[in-house]
Amino acid sequence: MNALGRHFLIELWSADNLDRPDLGEEALVEVVRATGATLLDTRFIPFPNGGYSGVCILAESHISIHTWPEHGYAAVDYFSCGPVDCELAIRYLEEKFGAECVESKEVERGVLAPAVGSRSSSAYVPARGVFPSQWREAAL
Amino acid sequence: MNALGRHFLIELWSADNLDRPDLGEEALVEVVRATGATLLDTRFIPFPNGGYSGVCILAESHISIHTWPEHGYAAVDYFSCGPVDCELAIRYLEEKFGAECVESKEVERGVLAPAVGSRSSSAYVPARGVFPSQWREAAL
Repeated sequence: MNALGRHFLIELWSADNLDRPDLGEEALVEVVRATGATLLDTRFIPFPNGGYSGVCILAESHISIHTWPEHGYAAVDYFSCGPVDCELAIRYLEEKFGAECVESKEVERGVLAPAVGSRSSSAYVPARGVFPSQWREAAL
Repeated sequence: MNALGRHFLIELWSADNLDRPDLGEEALVEVVRATGATLLDTRFIPFPNGGYSGVCILAESHISIHTWPEHGYAAVDYFSCGPVDCELAIRYLEEKFGAECVESKEVERGVLAPAVGSRSSSAYVPARGVFPSQWREAAL
Protein backbone atom coordinates (compact mmCIF):
# COMPACT_ATOMS: atom_id res chain seq x y z
CA MET A 1 0.00 0.00 0.00
CA ASN A 2 1.36 3.33 -1.03
CA ALA A 3 0.05 6.89 -1.29
CA LEU A 4 1.20 9.15 -4.10
CA GLY A 5 0.62 12.27 -2.04
CA ARG A 6 0.00 13.52 1.48
CA HIS A 7 -2.46 16.36 1.88
CA PHE A 8 -2.64 18.39 5.08
CA LEU A 9 -5.75 20.51 5.57
CA ILE A 10 -4.91 23.13 8.17
CA GLU A 11 -7.29 25.50 9.95
CA LEU A 12 -5.91 28.66 11.58
CA TRP A 13 -8.19 30.52 13.99
CA SER A 14 -7.79 33.82 15.86
CA ALA A 15 -4.99 34.64 13.46
CA ASP A 16 -3.42 37.99 12.59
CA ASN A 17 -2.24 39.73 9.44
CA LEU A 18 -4.84 37.98 7.32
CA ASP A 19 -5.25 41.16 5.26
CA ARG A 20 -1.57 41.26 4.31
CA PRO A 21 -0.87 39.10 1.24
CA ASP A 22 2.77 40.23 1.33
CA LEU A 23 3.19 38.72 4.79
CA GLY A 24 1.21 35.66 3.78
CA GLU A 25 3.50 35.06 0.82
CA GLU A 26 6.54 35.52 3.05
CA ALA A 27 5.13 33.04 5.55
CA LEU A 28 4.29 30.37 3.00
CA VAL A 29 7.65 30.70 1.27
CA GLU A 30 9.29 30.22 4.68
CA VAL A 31 7.22 27.10 5.27
CA VAL A 32 8.29 25.77 1.88
CA ARG A 33 11.95 26.36 2.71
CA ALA A 34 11.70 25.05 6.28
CA THR A 35 10.12 21.82 5.09
CA GLY A 36 12.70 21.31 2.34
CA ALA A 37 10.30 21.64 -0.56
CA THR A 38 11.16 23.27 -3.90
CA LEU A 39 9.32 26.46 -4.80
CA LEU A 40 8.48 26.89 -8.50
CA ASP A 41 6.06 29.81 -8.52
CA THR A 42 3.81 31.92 -6.30
CA ARG A 43 0.65 33.90 -6.94
CA PHE A 44 -1.15 35.96 -4.30
CA ILE A 45 -4.34 37.91 -5.02
CA PRO A 46 -6.00 40.36 -2.58
CA PHE A 47 -9.79 40.68 -2.33
CA PRO A 48 -12.00 43.71 -1.56
CA ASN A 49 -12.96 42.38 1.89
CA GLY A 50 -9.30 42.54 2.92
CA GLY A 51 -8.69 38.82 2.60
CA TYR A 52 -6.53 37.15 -0.01
CA SER A 53 -5.85 33.92 -1.82
CA GLY A 54 -2.36 32.65 -2.38
CA VAL A 55 -0.79 29.61 -3.99
CA CYS A 56 2.80 28.37 -4.03
CA ILE A 57 3.36 25.75 -6.72
CA LEU A 58 6.03 23.30 -5.64
CA ALA A 59 8.03 20.59 -7.36
CA GLU A 60 6.23 18.39 -4.79
CA SER A 61 2.68 19.81 -5.46
CA HIS A 62 1.38 22.99 -3.74
CA ILE A 63 0.62 25.07 -0.68
CA SER A 64 -2.42 27.35 -0.73
CA ILE A 65 -3.99 29.85 1.66
CA HIS A 66 -7.35 31.59 1.75
CA THR A 67 -8.02 34.16 4.45
CA TRP A 68 -11.14 35.61 6.07
CA PRO A 69 -9.76 38.44 8.26
CA GLU A 70 -13.27 39.30 9.50
CA HIS A 71 -13.33 35.87 11.16
CA GLY A 72 -9.64 35.67 12.06
CA TYR A 73 -9.58 32.51 9.96
CA ALA A 74 -7.30 31.08 7.29
CA ALA A 75 -7.48 27.76 5.45
CA VAL A 76 -4.08 26.38 4.46
CA ASP A 77 -3.49 23.29 2.33
CA TYR A 78 -0.13 21.59 2.02
CA PHE A 79 -0.23 18.90 -0.66
CA SER A 80 3.05 17.07 -1.22
CA CYS A 81 4.27 14.01 -3.04
CA GLY A 82 7.40 14.12 -0.89
CA PRO A 83 7.94 13.69 2.84
CA VAL A 84 6.60 16.63 4.86
CA ASP A 85 7.18 17.53 8.49
CA CYS A 86 3.66 18.77 9.04
CA GLU A 87 4.27 19.70 12.66
CA LEU A 88 7.12 21.95 11.58
CA ALA A 89 4.91 23.56 8.94
CA ILE A 90 2.20 24.14 11.52
CA ARG A 91 4.63 25.67 14.01
CA TYR A 92 5.73 28.15 11.35
CA LEU A 93 2.16 28.99 10.38
CA GLU A 94 1.09 29.32 14.00
CA GLU A 95 3.95 31.70 14.73
CA LYS A 96 3.78 33.73 11.53
CA PHE A 97 0.04 34.32 11.82
CA GLY A 98 -0.11 34.43 15.62
CA ALA A 99 -2.87 31.84 15.47
CA GLU A 100 -4.39 30.92 18.82
CA CYS A 101 -5.97 27.73 17.55
CA VAL A 102 -4.73 25.38 14.85
CA GLU A 103 -6.29 22.16 13.65
CA SER A 104 -5.00 19.86 10.96
CA LYS A 105 -6.10 16.78 9.13
CA GLU A 106 -3.99 14.55 6.91
CA VAL A 107 -5.55 12.88 3.91
CA GLU A 108 -3.67 10.38 1.77
CA ARG A 109 -4.16 11.00 -1.93
CA GLY A 110 -3.74 8.43 -4.67
CA VAL A 111 -3.59 5.39 -2.44
CA LEU A 112 -2.30 2.37 -4.35
CA ALA A 113 -2.17 -1.33 -3.52
CA PRO A 114 -0.21 -4.09 -5.27
CA ALA A 115 -2.25 -5.53 -8.10
CA VAL A 116 -1.95 -9.12 -6.90
CA GLY A 117 -3.82 -11.42 -9.22
CA SER A 118 -5.11 -8.48 -11.19
CA ARG A 119 -5.19 -8.27 -14.97
CA SER A 120 -4.12 -4.64 -14.70
CA SER A 121 -1.07 -3.80 -16.75
CA SER A 122 0.13 -1.64 -13.84
CA ALA A 123 1.91 -3.07 -10.81
CA TYR A 124 -0.53 -1.14 -8.64
CA VAL A 125 -4.25 -0.57 -8.59
CA PRO A 126 -6.36 1.98 -6.70
CA ALA A 127 -6.76 0.87 -3.10
CA ARG A 128 -10.30 2.11 -2.67
CA GLY A 129 -10.98 0.00 0.36
CA VAL A 130 -8.44 1.86 2.45
CA PHE A 131 -10.39 5.10 2.50
CA PRO A 132 -12.38 5.78 5.65
CA SER A 133 -16.01 4.76 5.38
CA GLN A 134 -17.22 8.28 4.66
CA TRP A 135 -14.96 8.36 1.60
CA ARG A 136 -16.53 5.20 0.29
CA GLU A 137 -19.99 6.55 1.01
CA ALA A 138 -19.15 9.73 -0.87
CA ALA A 139 -17.88 7.84 -3.91
CA LEU A 140 -19.91 8.68 -6.99
CA MET B 1 -23.60 26.74 12.11
CA ASN B 2 -21.94 27.94 8.97
CA ALA B 3 -18.93 26.95 6.87
CA LEU B 4 -16.83 29.61 5.17
CA GLY B 5 -15.77 27.23 2.42
CA ARG B 6 -16.52 23.88 0.84
CA HIS B 7 -13.59 21.78 -0.26
CA PHE B 8 -14.02 18.84 -2.62
CA LEU B 9 -11.14 16.37 -2.79
CA ILE B 10 -11.53 14.44 -6.03
CA GLU B 11 -9.62 11.34 -7.11
CA LEU B 12 -9.53 10.44 -10.82
CA TRP B 13 -8.32 6.94 -11.74
CA SER B 14 -7.66 5.25 -15.07
CA ALA B 15 -7.63 8.70 -16.62
CA ASP B 16 -6.20 9.89 -19.94
CA ASN B 17 -4.24 12.90 -21.14
CA LEU B 18 -2.50 13.33 -17.79
CA ASP B 19 0.68 14.36 -19.61
CA ARG B 20 -1.03 17.24 -21.41
CA PRO B 21 -1.06 20.38 -19.25
CA ASP B 22 -2.70 22.28 -22.12
CA LEU B 23 -5.69 19.92 -22.02
CA GLY B 24 -5.69 19.98 -18.23
CA GLU B 25 -5.89 23.75 -18.20
CA GLU B 26 -8.68 23.67 -20.78
CA ALA B 27 -10.58 21.14 -18.67
CA LEU B 28 -10.26 23.04 -15.41
CA VAL B 29 -11.21 26.34 -17.03
CA GLU B 30 -14.32 24.61 -18.41
CA VAL B 31 -15.15 23.31 -14.94
CA VAL B 32 -14.78 26.83 -13.56
CA ARG B 33 -17.15 28.21 -16.21
CA ALA B 34 -19.63 25.35 -15.93
CA THR B 35 -19.92 25.80 -12.19
CA GLY B 36 -20.34 29.57 -12.44
CA ALA B 37 -17.10 30.48 -10.67
CA THR B 38 -14.91 33.45 -11.59
CA LEU B 39 -11.44 32.72 -12.95
CA LEU B 40 -8.72 35.16 -11.87
CA ASP B 41 -5.52 33.42 -12.93
CA THR B 42 -4.11 30.06 -14.01
CA ARG B 43 -0.67 28.49 -13.75
CA PHE B 44 0.24 25.07 -15.13
CA ILE B 45 3.72 23.56 -14.82
CA PRO B 46 4.88 20.34 -16.54
CA PHE B 47 7.26 17.89 -14.85
CA PRO B 48 9.96 15.63 -16.31
CA ASN B 49 7.95 12.45 -15.61
CA GLY B 50 5.24 13.73 -17.96
CA GLY B 51 2.87 14.80 -15.20
CA TYR B 52 1.97 18.36 -14.34
CA SER B 53 0.63 20.61 -11.61
CA GLY B 54 -1.96 23.25 -12.31
CA VAL B 55 -3.83 25.82 -10.29
CA CYS B 56 -6.73 28.09 -11.20
CA ILE B 57 -7.17 30.91 -8.68
CA LEU B 58 -10.81 31.90 -8.42
CA ALA B 59 -12.70 34.76 -6.86
CA GLU B 60 -14.22 31.92 -4.80
CA SER B 61 -10.86 30.23 -3.87
CA HIS B 62 -9.14 27.71 -6.18
CA ILE B 63 -9.09 24.54 -8.25
CA SER B 64 -5.87 22.54 -8.46
CA ILE B 65 -4.74 19.40 -10.24
CA HIS B 66 -1.69 17.16 -9.88
CA THR B 67 -1.24 14.27 -12.28
CA TRP B 68 0.67 10.97 -12.22
CA PRO B 69 0.31 9.66 -15.79
CA GLU B 70 2.30 6.53 -14.93
CA HIS B 71 -0.54 5.58 -12.57
CA GLY B 72 -3.41 7.00 -14.61
CA TYR B 73 -4.15 9.12 -11.55
CA ALA B 74 -4.96 12.77 -10.91
CA ALA B 75 -5.80 14.56 -7.67
CA VAL B 76 -8.17 17.50 -8.12
CA ASP B 77 -9.19 19.94 -5.39
CA TYR B 78 -12.08 22.35 -5.75
CA PHE B 79 -12.15 24.79 -2.83
CA SER B 80 -14.93 27.37 -2.96
CA CYS B 81 -16.49 29.93 -0.66
CA GLY B 82 -19.50 30.00 -2.97
CA PRO B 83 -22.07 27.35 -3.89
CA VAL B 84 -20.62 24.59 -6.07
CA ASP B 85 -22.40 21.91 -8.04
CA CYS B 86 -19.80 19.26 -7.31
CA GLU B 87 -21.56 16.58 -9.31
CA LEU B 88 -21.46 18.84 -12.37
CA ALA B 89 -17.75 19.47 -11.80
CA ILE B 90 -17.11 15.74 -11.49
CA ARG B 91 -19.07 14.95 -14.65
CA TYR B 92 -16.88 17.44 -16.55
CA LEU B 93 -13.67 16.04 -15.08
CA GLU B 94 -14.74 12.45 -15.73
CA GLU B 95 -15.55 13.23 -19.35
CA LYS B 96 -12.54 15.46 -20.06
CA PHE B 97 -10.06 12.98 -18.61
CA GLY B 98 -11.92 9.82 -19.62
CA ALA B 99 -11.63 8.66 -16.01
CA GLU B 100 -13.01 5.19 -15.33
CA CYS B 101 -13.19 5.69 -11.59
CA VAL B 102 -13.89 8.89 -9.67
CA GLU B 103 -14.14 9.34 -5.92
CA SER B 104 -14.85 12.54 -4.07
CA LYS B 105 -14.96 13.76 -0.52
CA GLU B 106 -16.39 17.04 0.73
CA VAL B 107 -14.78 18.78 3.67
CA GLU B 108 -16.26 21.90 5.24
CA ARG B 109 -13.62 24.52 5.95
CA GLY B 110 -13.89 27.29 8.51
CA VAL B 111 -16.94 25.96 10.32
CA LEU B 112 -18.48 28.62 12.56
CA ALA B 113 -21.15 28.46 15.23
CA PRO B 114 -23.00 31.32 16.93
CA ALA B 115 -21.05 32.55 19.95
CA VAL B 116 -23.96 32.22 22.35
CA GLY B 117 -22.87 33.17 25.84
CA SER B 118 -19.32 33.63 24.63
CA ARG B 119 -17.06 36.52 25.52
CA SER B 120 -15.82 36.53 21.94
CA SER B 121 -16.12 39.88 20.20
CA SER B 122 -17.17 38.04 17.07
CA ALA B 123 -20.73 36.86 16.46
CA TYR B 124 -19.27 33.47 15.61
CA VAL B 125 -16.68 31.18 17.08
CA PRO B 126 -14.91 28.13 15.61
CA ALA B 127 -17.25 25.15 15.77
CA ARG B 128 -14.57 22.59 16.51
CA GLY B 129 -17.01 20.02 17.79
CA VAL B 130 -18.59 19.59 14.38
CA PHE B 131 -15.54 18.00 12.81
CA PRO B 132 -15.63 14.22 12.53
CA SER B 133 -13.85 12.45 15.36
CA GLN B 134 -10.69 11.88 13.34
CA TRP B 135 -10.41 15.65 12.86
CA ARG B 136 -10.53 16.20 16.58
CA GLU B 137 -8.04 13.44 17.18
CA ALA B 138 -5.72 15.03 14.63
CA ALA B 139 -6.00 18.46 16.25
CA LEU B 140 -2.67 19.73 17.48
